[in-house]
Amino acid sequence: MAESVLLPDLATQIIIPICALVGIAFALVQWVIVAKVKVSVDKSHSADGKMASPKRSSRKRMEAVIIPLFRSAPKSKTPSPKVNFLSFHDFVNMEQNEDSNMNDNLQLADVVAIEYRDCSSSFSIMLLWTINNCCATSFLFTMYQYVGIFMVAFAVLIFLFLGSVEGFSTKPQTCTYDSTKLCKPALATAAFSTISFVLGAITSVISGFLGMKIATYANARTTLEARKGVGKAFIVAFRSGAVMGFLLAANGLLVLFITINLFKLYYGDDWEGLFEAITGYGLGGSSMALFGRVGGGIYTKAADVGADLVGKVERNIPEDDPRNPAVIADNVGDNVGDIAGMGSDLFGSYAESSCAALVVASISSFGINHDFTAMLYPLLVSSIGILVCLLTTLFATDFFEVKTVKEIEPSLKKQLIISTILMTVGVAFISWIGLPSSFTIFNFGVQKDVKSWQLFLCVAVGLWAGLIIGFVTEYYTSNAYSPVQDVADSCRTGAATNVIFGLALGYKSVIIPIFAIAISIFVSFSFAAMYGIAVAALGMLSTIATGLAIDAYGPISDNAGGIAEMAGMSHTIRERTDALDAAGNTTAAIGKGFAIGSAALVSLALFGAFVSRAAISTVDVLTPKVFIGLLVGAMLPYWFSAMTMKSVGSAALKMVEEISTDASIKEMIPPGALVMLTPLIVGIFFGVETLSGVLAGSLVSGVQIAISASNTGGAWDNAKKYIEAGASEHARTLGPKGSDAHKAAVIGDTVGDPLKDTSGPSLNILIKLMAVESLVFAPFFAAHGGLLFKIF
Amino acid sequence: MAESVLLPDLATQIIIPICALVGIAFALVQWVIVAKVKVSVDKSHSADGKMASPKRSSRKRMEAVIIPLFRSAPKSKTPSPKVNFLSFHDFVNMEQNEDSNMNDNLQLADVVAIEYRDCSSSFSIMLLWTINNCCATSFLFTMYQYVGIFMVAFAVLIFLFLGSVEGFSTKPQTCTYDSTKLCKPALATAAFSTISFVLGAITSVISGFLGMKIATYANARTTLEARKGVGKAFIVAFRSGAVMGFLLAANGLLVLFITINLFKLYYGDDWEGLFEAITGYGLGGSSMALFGRVGGGIYTKAADVGADLVGKVERNIPEDDPRNPAVIADNVGDNVGDIAGMGSDLFGSYAESSCAALVVASISSFGINHDFTAMLYPLLVSSIGILVCLLTTLFATDFFEVKTVKEIEPSLKKQLIISTILMTVGVAFISWIGLPSSFTIFNFGVQKDVKSWQLFLCVAVGLWAGLIIGFVTEYYTSNAYSPVQDVADSCRTGAATNVIFGLALGYKSVIIPIFAIAISIFVSFSFAAMYGIAVAALGMLSTIATGLAIDAYGPISDNAGGIAEMAGMSHTIRERTDALDAAGNTTAAIGKGFAIGSAALVSLALFGAFVSRAAISTVDVLTPKVFIGLLVGAMLPYWFSAMTMKSVGSAALKMVEEISTDASIKEMIPPGALVMLTPLIVGIFFGVETLSGVLAGSLVSGVQIAISASNTGGAWDNAKKYIEAGASEHARTLGPKGSDAHKAAVIGDTVGDPLKDTSGPSLNILIKLMAVESLVFAPFFAAHGGLLFKIF
Repeated sequence: MAESVLLPDLATQIIIPICALVGIAFALVQWVIVAKVKVSVDKSHSADGKMASPKRSSRKRMEAVIIPLFRSAPKSKTPSPKVNFLSFHDFVNMEQNEDSNMNDNLQLADVVAIEYRDCSSSFSIMLLWTINNCCATSFLFTMYQYVGIFMVAFAVLIFLFLGSVEGFSTKPQTCTYDSTKLCKPALATAAFSTISFVLGAITSVISGFLGMKIATYANARTTLEARKGVGKAFIVAFRSGAVMGFLLAANGLLVLFITINLFKLYYGDDWEGLFEAITGYGLGGSSMALFGRVGGGIYTKAADVGADLVGKVERNIPEDDPRNPAVIADNVGDNVGDIAGMGSDLFGSYAESSCAALVVASISSFGINHDFTAMLYPLLVSSIGILVCLLTTLFATDFFEVKTVKEIEPSLKKQLIISTILMTVGVAFISWIGLPSSFTIFNFGVQKDVKSWQLFLCVAVGLWAGLIIGFVTEYYTSNAYSPVQDVADSCRTGAATNVIFGLALGYKSVIIPIFAIAISIFVSFSFAAMYGIAVAALGMLSTIATGLAIDAYGPISDNAGGIAEMAGMSHTIRERTDALDAAGNTTAAIGKGFAIGSAALVSLALFGAFVSRAAISTVDVLTPKVFIGLLVGAMLPYWFSAMTMKSVGSAALKMVEEISTDASIKEMIPPGALVMLTPLIVGIFFGVETLSGVLAGSLVSGVQIAISASNTGGAWDNAKKYIEAGASEHARTLGPKGSDAHKAAVIGDTVGDPLKDTSGPSLNILIKLMAVESLVFAPFFAAHGGLLFKIF
Repeated sequence: MAESVLLPDLATQIIIPICALVGIAFALVQWVIVAKVKVSVDKSHSADGKMASPKRSSRKRMEAVIIPLFRSAPKSKTPSPKVNFLSFHDFVNMEQNEDSNMNDNLQLADVVAIEYRDCSSSFSIMLLWTINNCCATSFLFTMYQYVGIFMVAFAVLIFLFLGSVEGFSTKPQTCTYDSTKLCKPALATAAFSTISFVLGAITSVISGFLGMKIATYANARTTLEARKGVGKAFIVAFRSGAVMGFLLAANGLLVLFITINLFKLYYGDDWEGLFEAITGYGLGGSSMALFGRVGGGIYTKAADVGADLVGKVERNIPEDDPRNPAVIADNVGDNVGDIAGMGSDLFGSYAESSCAALVVASISSFGINHDFTAMLYPLLVSSIGILVCLLTTLFATDFFEVKTVKEIEPSLKKQLIISTILMTVGVAFISWIGLPSSFTIFNFGVQKDVKSWQLFLCVAVGLWAGLIIGFVTEYYTSNAYSPVQDVADSCRTGAATNVIFGLALGYKSVIIPIFAIAISIFVSFSFAAMYGIAVAALGMLSTIATGLAIDAYGPISDNAGGIAEMAGMSHTIRERTDALDAAGNTTAAIGKGFAIGSAALVSLALFGAFVSRAAISTVDVLTPKVFIGLLVGAMLPYWFSAMTMKSVGSAALKMVEEISTDASIKEMIPPGALVMLTPLIVGIFFGVETLSGVLAGSLVSGVQIAISASNTGGAWDNAKKYIEAGASEHARTLGPKGSDAHKAAVIGDTVGDPLKDTSGPSLNILIKLMAVESLVFAPFFAAHGGLLFKIF
């Protein structure tokens, strides 16, 4: 039945790592180009005697405000000698210089001060607690300490639970899907699952951390380039985003590829066991993403709200003043939540959909015939994706040049369209050479015949559904279209109508994405069962490098704007960074749309893999065990949202009292526990049928809340910006800043913050993580689960 | 296998109608007692020359405000000769009389004016557009005109679709579940389904209409009794609620019983066909409920918001002034939405759960053995329920007397507890005498053995789950407990935190009710499959008379308070009506909790009956057809909510411009169409499997949004009241009225209005109605559905 594959196995073994390395090299080239923008202390400014002695009193006052917020932050061990601490402090106290040209030059030093930092100096503490990466880093380090403990504990749990499946026996066992053969013992799977879990976790952490480093590295450079023109600034911001996108995509692929090859040394022909062990990689990746998203999201918003409260207590600092920590906390938060969180999140989705596809493939004809190239089809798709994204990036950086503000948003949107079109061709090509023209796929107990063109369609439908979701998200969250304008208009009648219209907008924005996901599921499910779903998810994520570049571009240009404002740069420059930021806001929403859409497909694929591995053949809603699982599963996203939304409030209050990072990290524990423990408790006490129900329920319910929460929040944010910008006749009737309508819009924006930055995007991870965790523990649940029903 | 039943069939034939008649008689007795409170024009007041000539100018001013709002309202044809129009107009312009005793007496006339009315007089138009039942009635009549058209169209559709199943053949067909027998032709089922649909719709309309009439009848009397003391007022309000509760429960039972007996004359031994035809009753009941809830909800809130806008335009009328139509519109709305809507809603649930149980029973051993008493077990449970509620009511009206304000809420809660305990005994008794000790129940293709004690447990678990849901709802929405107090406290930091905390509270409040529902489902499903679910739903609804009495009590005392305020009655009296109202708010939330919980069970039972009737044996989530149904189904409640929430805004704007009732009725069409057309479209084009997925998805997703939306809204309402009342030290630090915290609370309350009064409670009906509609059309879908899959 199985036919030959055009691509030889050796070529596959070469192509995948080479594509990954090309991706990494490309990222480094972009980094080098960005690094060419020199940031150095302007000596003429430091020599200026007038600036050298800040008023003692104002210095004291600022310390009084900020120090309590930072009491427990760890101290940096390597203070940079280059720092010009006075400059930042100076500018916040000095009079605004009317000569904009001179001012821009002057502020160069401040930008430097913002980038280089020293946590031990209380004098620069405001600076530290702010945009600079010292504090975002310190937050991440504190978080990783907690997360490290969790990781070790969970690794032990994985080993013990999976090892106990065969009673820690070291004897080979008969394979699950082919009883005529002998497979490696469960103990080996336990050990290798644990290893791949740790690898996934570490790769996820590195992805998030690198992304954040790059983003903070790029902020100041974008601001500086903005002096030369909007086009230059755009390219710096976009290149920096690309560094992150390519590093993450290539890293994820490379680590996975190496791990598979290393594991293969032990597993040999036992592909079933090999790819079961590989699923730990996805679990590790996503569990770190959960903490990045939730912890980061809570930290961001708590810092924002908390600093705002402090700012109000110390009345000397008005709300919109750059000296107000609230303005700055927002910037730190963007780095932690949006960049590190989104990076880990998409890395997790990528790892999980690959794992889900590999697990199903290992028990399909690819695995049975040991067809290596076809087996690694998911990795080949990702490899081609890197090349396609590389080409796409050149369209923005080299082939065309952005010259005016108006060209920014179309240029970013073109990236999405170009990458999708090119990728469609790429997938067609790789499906032609990398797959047998006909093969069988495991479909819950039976093998299903699939043609290679059908699998191509599965990938393509996922790819295009992603584009549709992206554009729908844009339509509902960009203030260029009527939905956000209607929400802005509703501010006329007050905050209440604004909130009602915003919520209704979010609910409405769910409709088309759900149809897009449903159609993808139907097509790919019908053609190639759960393998089809997994590759559809991979299709949506195949342009991840471009997607992340666009996504990271948002916070980078947002922060560039923040720096420009803090450094008191001229109006022209701020206008440029604002334009970059506005485009970034929309693309960030598109990124969230992608993340949610792919999460839905990934979860379903993982769910399918779980069901296959737990040896369930039907998940019948008409059985009580499944139905109650479905009902309770649909409730979990609400429970989770209730926790994360309130966490922001509680952490903010604690942050005002004393501690900054610890509060948000502690608030992260209950929602984290809910997600991590639910599959374990349900699996152990109620068994795999109920767990299937829970997974299906949380998937179908969570995806709706996630989309609506993200879009509602995004719409409120942009409705506020629409009124503030006053770019149209209609917008001007609502403004200016400080009008009643604007006040109402600000309330909506504040309500939206926890929805779009904390609870909404974390829900992706909730649904994915529960599914991948169930998949990893499936053999254990199948062997020892359902205690409660066994007792009664 | 089947054993004999203790209760002879003849006794069943007598007991059911007698219980229903006892219920109706009891309702009439309560009405007579309420009617003893005489409301007559105080001649001494009319004779008072000073009051007879209101200032012309102020009269003109008021007309200018109100007339545009009412331009298109239909004119009443029978102006009441008793009306003293001047009195109402007088009091709004006159000085407040310091002598409270004299004032209370004086206002008696105003109360009369509020009750008797004449729509044709523009002079009394404000009055008309307000609390009086003329306008609520006129709204309902306009609505019923639209609904009448829908009803005729849908009746035709039912007849044509169901008739076409066997090509309009008049020949007997082989039975679905027993192929050895001949059943009545599909054409007969089509005709009788159509008849029962119309009967259900009419009964539902009558239930809602009577409830509203009684409520408006009781308002003024409660206000008047408040002069004598809080206990007297409480009893009048409660008795009036009981009139509605008993009339509705007894009417529903009696019509159903008579219909069954009449249909039996034709169907004879074909019980399968008979009870298939009876399901139309449930569909009719619920489709009217949809329009009552949605139309009423939109009207209420649109009138509220619209009038508020007008009030602000005409600056002479301050917001809290009784002359402001907003204050009054709220009252009209309470009658339409809460009383008529809730009445129709619960009637629908009651009819549907009975129908679901009867359909399953007809193909179980009861039906096969023609065991009439056991077959009518659901009706016997409801009959006992009426007797139990009658006894329970006496505890509030006769056995104990409410003397102080503090006793009101405990007295109402005791009603719930007493009825639940008594009903548990009642159900045990009827299960003992009305069921064979052992029998078989149809369970998706196989017959399942059930013991009578197991069925008793099914009913009991539903009954007690209802109580738990009620008390959890109370905990989360009453300002006596910490959740609402926390929300009130969050108003300190502004409207945004209030909204965030309120949303989080709603999400959190879902957890326990979902577990309660899940446990009920698990127990009843395990014991007696879908029949168990249906009787669990009936168990929850068996104390419907008491539940509705408590529920209707809320709006009645709310309106009594409104009348007292408008009539400028003394502070003491207003305090009394406020206390009644506060208790009513909480019980209204409990009522909504009951409605949602029972809707979930009912929908599942209907879903089960649908699956049985469509001859599907499994609804496997792991098939693409089902899964996409699940996903899209889970999206429908969001789509529906988006529509209904925005409708309020749009209708309000239109109401300000010109039209009152038509605007809200037109806004009702899109959400109504979404609910009514979805099962038809999905069934016809995608077939029964996808439709099963849609039903399951909308059920598990809708119940969560319904609970959270209702509780969030209720909590905001009571948080505002908590601050206004200032009853505790904590509350006083947040108040008084007009403080920043209070303003923030008002915004929350306004956001909550459409959530708790429009979208939340309508969602119950969405999930029930789609299920019952699918059940009615199941034979048609099974025969001709799934066109799209047939083509490809």
